[in-house]
Amino acid sequence: MPKLEATEREAALKELDGWTFDAERDAIRRSFKFADFSEAFAFMTRVALAAETANHHPDWSNVWNRVDILLTTHDAAGLTRRDIDLAKRIDAFAR
Amino acid sequence: MPKLEATEREAALKELDGWTFDAERDAIRRSFKFADFSEAFAFMTRVALAAETANHHPDWSNVWNRVDILLTTHDAAGLTRRDIDLAKRIDAFAR
Repeated sequence: MPKLEATEREAALKELDGWTFDAERDAIRRSFKFADFSEAFAFMTRVALAAETANHHPDWSNVWNRVDILLTTHDAAGLTRRDIDLAKRIDAFAR
Repeated sequence: MPKLEATEREAALKELDGWTFDAERDAIRRSFKFADFSEAFAFMTRVALAAETANHHPDWSNVWNRVDILLTTHDAAGLTRRDIDLAKRIDAFAR
């Protein structure tokens, strides 16, 4: 899986909702806020199932109603199409 | 819910498995490693249910098979008995 070129990355980010590029990690990030922990963890569970299905997993953290997700492809040492595809699934869950 | 005094904290930490005190956050921390993401997220789900039942939630992060948990009591601005009680539940899940 090749890393995305800068132009591919810019185009891909436009397909997503509110993800930002983290140049240091060659990754994309987004924070999500929910009504409470129950809603946040329900969302995390959907993301976990999608991640496991794709065999591509997030770096993520949670504090009560907040979920911070970072996506990168460890095997490629940077951002790939797999990250964009998972981000799209995640955006759909958050809508 | 009062913050734990240093002597109470030392005694409480002895009841736990491998938690360390984070003085800067007035919190306790432990890292857990599992066989894979599936096992890690199964553990997280058990912790989430226990946290919701106790109405006391972790600050935590996950990267594939690893789960890092920090417990503190935001309302008390430090470590309380509620953190120790939740840590005990978490230790039981990890055994």
